[in-house]
Amino acid sequence: MANSKYEYVRSFEQPDILLANTWIVVRIDGRGFSKLTTKYNFAKPNDRRGLDLMNAAAEAVMKELPDLVLAYGNSDEFSFVFHKDCTLFERRASKLTTTIVSTFTSYYVFLWPEYMGDGRLTPPLPSFDGRAVCYPSDQNLRDYISWRQVDCHINNLYNTTFWALVQNGGMEARAAEQELAGTVSSDKNEILFSRFGINYNNEPEIFKKGSVLYRDVGAIVTPQNLRLTETNSSSSLLQQSLCQHLPGPMAPRN
Amino acid sequence: MANSKYEYVRSFEQPDILLANTWIVVRIDGRGFSKLTTKYNFAKPNDRRGLDLMNAAAEAVMKELPDLVLAYGNSDEFSFVFHKDCTLFERRASKLTTTIVSTFTSYYVFLWPEYMGDGRLTPPLPSFDGRAVCYPSDQNLRDYISWRQVDCHINNLYNTTFWALVQNGGMEARAAEQELAGTVSSDKNEILFSRFGINYNNEPEIFKKGSVLYRDVGAIVTPQNLRLTETNSSSSLLQQSLCQHLPGPMAPRN
Amino acid sequence: MANSKYEYVRSFEQPDILLANTWIVVRIDGRGFSKLTTKYNFAKPNDRRGLDLMNAAAEAVMKELPDLVLAYGNSDEFSFVFHKDCTLFERRASKLTTTIVSTFTSYYVFLWPEYMGDGRLTPPLPSFDGRAVCYPSDQNLRDYISWRQVDCHINNLYNTTFWALVQNGGMEARAAEQELAGTVSSDKNEILFSRFGINYNNEPEIFKKGSVLYRDVGAIVTPQNLRLTETNSSSSLLQQSLCQHLPGPMAPRN
Amino acid sequence: MANSKYEYVRSFEQPDILLANTWIVVRIDGRGFSKLTTKYNFAKPNDRRGLDLMNAAAEAVMKELPDLVLAYGNSDEFSFVFHKDCTLFERRASKLTTTIVSTFTSYYVFLWPEYMGDGRLTPPLPSFDGRAVCYPSDQNLRDYISWRQVDCHINNLYNTTFWALVQNGGMEARAAEQELAGTVSSDKNEILFSRFGINYNNEPEIFKKGSVLYRDVGAIVTPQNLRLTETNSSSSLLQQSLCQHLPGPMAPRN
Repeated sequence: MANSKYEYVRSFEQPDILLANTWIVVRIDGRGFSKLTTKYNFAKPNDRRGLDLMNAAAEAVMKELPDLVLAYGNSDEFSFVFHKDCTLFERRASKLTTTIVSTFTSYYVFLWPEYMGDGRLTPPLPSFDGRAVCYPSDQNLRDYISWRQVDCHINNLYNTTFWALVQNGGMEARAAEQELAGTVSSDKNEILFSRFGINYNNEPEIFKKGSVLYRDVGAIVTPQNLRLTETNSSSSLLQQSLCQHLPGPMAPRN
Repeated sequence: MANSKYEYVRSFEQPDILLANTWIVVRIDGRGFSKLTTKYNFAKPNDRRGLDLMNAAAEAVMKELPDLVLAYGNSDEFSFVFHKDCTLFERRASKLTTTIVSTFTSYYVFLWPEYMGDGRLTPPLPSFDGRAVCYPSDQNLRDYISWRQVDCHINNLYNTTFWALVQNGGMEARAAEQELAGTVSSDKNEILFSRFGINYNNEPEIFKKGSVLYRDVGAIVTPQNLRLTETNSSSSLLQQSLCQHLPGPMAPRN
Repeated sequence: MANSKYEYVRSFEQPDILLANTWIVVRIDGRGFSKLTTKYNFAKPNDRRGLDLMNAAAEAVMKELPDLVLAYGNSDEFSFVFHKDCTLFERRASKLTTTIVSTFTSYYVFLWPEYMGDGRLTPPLPSFDGRAVCYPSDQNLRDYISWRQVDCHINNLYNTTFWALVQNGGMEARAAEQELAGTVSSDKNEILFSRFGINYNNEPEIFKKGSVLYRDVGAIVTPQNLRLTETNSSSSLLQQSLCQHLPGPMAPRN
Repeated sequence: MANSKYEYVRSFEQPDILLANTWIVVRIDGRGFSKLTTKYNFAKPNDRRGLDLMNAAAEAVMKELPDLVLAYGNSDEFSFVFHKDCTLFERRASKLTTTIVSTFTSYYVFLWPEYMGDGRLTPPLPSFDGRAVCYPSDQNLRDYISWRQVDCHINNLYNTTFWALVQNGGMEARAAEQELAGTVSSDKNEILFSRFGINYNNEPEIFKKGSVLYRDVGAIVTPQNLRLTETNSSSSLLQQSLCQHLPGPMAPRN
């Protein structure tokens, strides 16, 4: 029996090939992770086990998809970078995006017991969404990574101060929010230092800067060349990693 | 510190809103499942535990996404249907697709031990890809489901005959393939019956027709209204389910 | 000499196939026509010669593109409708849109002297832009046409009143604008009637309702079957035309 | 009267913003120009008046759209280049494409009598279609222009030889086609020289290389800075023009 009678429905499929010669970034985000981190009692503002689990899942994604050259993650998000020349899945957006999201999710759930210990998963389970974006120039890609890293810093400084006010200062969440409304970075640094004796600069790099995964270039690219950089002081490792992949000097960024 | 310097990179994000007033079908497929089914010794041609696991994951997806009205699955694929009027995630293709793929994957991995017993998962882990397609008319949607169901039938008849030749007939895989090359449905039915005493019509419906998940309409739509139809004789339940959602009579299909 | 070295640049072309089984509407709009109508002293609020020229250009488009089933125009815009089943140019948006825009422009410039007489064209010349939109259901298409027709009515009532105030009432443009700010339809009808003795209902249908072009169905569709309906009392001809193409009864619209 | 009841139809409009930071090329092509050139007795293989008309229309397009930095044309096609940084019409593909196609058509029809003299236009009139393509890197853009220019050369050498065989050699079109089937460039050069005494290198540059339009950079960009380069020996002017717009040295091309 041929299937020709209904096969016309394939004509409704629309191509979603990403523009050639552009960097492809697939960013995935945890769905409803503020609920999830409460449910499983994640440490606040950062749960090292949770970040290690994110990094382990991202590392598995990079091992299963050798076309990936770089990944950057913080909090409940991870950005995966395919090279401009990548032709995996003919650069189809849905294929690239769903494969990364699914592989990441698979390892996140599978590795959960190893990293999270006694907080056994129960439904509703963790899940992630994702999207692909093309960046034409190397500078655009660098700026994308910088954008995510600055976002990490802004959020982490806020969260560190907020939770210091709540956990060490005994404030209600609402009051802490009001205290921080309108403050700039220096205000938050001052609150941390003067009230709680916390020097923000001494916070762990992985909290302040996020994590970078990259492949060694020069060596043949195999999953074994993969390097995980959990902390990257002054973002130099991120820059070093990008420099390996991106031609030309890095413009200094202040 | 504002993030404005790099925020321009958001301008590279391109919208992927699916056309309004069309049925949205997200079909997911197992990646490399012929390897996976070999690795974990799935029964051939069909492993009931594996299908039950697929159905359980699909049921969880429908419970977590009340906007879904219908799902149809067979083998390592599942199609999820959003109503024409659905506005979930503003109908963004990547959001809809990755959310379904991720949720499905999450439950598939989580429920694996419950369904697959001793075949404990080891990397590389199962994963799925997916894509969204829009169908403008009710007839187009019905024909899509029919297309997948006919595909299920064609593949299952082939696989049932192939594995009968190999498992019961003692043939090598290559020889069985050659035996079946060029045969039509009636030939395969004849091989099954005359050589192995198998009446294909008596094979389990879930193998021949696939599985349908739908919501009770009329009742308020909540996850509790979800019905799983593992077997659907003569596809009448599929049609019944579609009739609940699709206005107008079903054209008879031969 | 082969051209293969550079031919890779074709890989940057991205498909723009419009979704199958949907009505395709290409609407074109005059670019900078308020300047143009001033430059060539078009009669205000409506210049019958200008509308006749628009209609003549639209008729030529429909004759050159037999796949078009309907066109609706008013002021400096025209909407052209391809049937759901249309496969012209494989339904490529850019091909369909540019062909209509170019053909329309060609006739508009060519026929200008015939319709506009002594107002000889000089650069900058008239031009049009356009875009294609898909409508999945017949009701969506009807509502699209109604949308444009209601827009025609709203604009024409405003313009008729505005120019009565300026031309017959001796007002400055600015004062007329202020006079009309915040008025509703009945206010404008009242101004026209009480101050200028104009009964808006007696204004020409082509000004109030726009123009419809359609093909005779039933007869074989050839360019000769094309009908131009310049005036359509109570929009009945528009509805009649749509009824010929769209199955099912028209819902009454108030 | 508000138009809100039908305004929902706007939700079917889908965005078509072209990726930021990429060169946008809009190429337009004459529709059915082999028929048209026969109808109006264009000189074969090249009609200088026809090319001059194309160039005049392209020049008008560049004057009306100051965002265009470059245009390249040959035969019945013209490619218009918007700068990577261009934000005209928010980079909407349909707006950019239809505006260029319409403006070009408008001038082509308007200027026809001036260039084509006694061959007065009659319906069906000339028209053009067009499409937009994005090129991420400067090299991609250069290669695009090279692709069109090599195409010009290949076609012109073929056409020059074909028409020499027909016009000077007294061959039927079919026989000339067969004569040329399978020949390479050197064969055609040889046919031209040995049989007809034509040295292809001495053919007019505008026939062999096409035409380039560019703006003077350095000077303020106004329509007055526009330069038309009808002939460009060894493509050096094309390269010079591109060099003005594209940073970095040109790689030598053999």
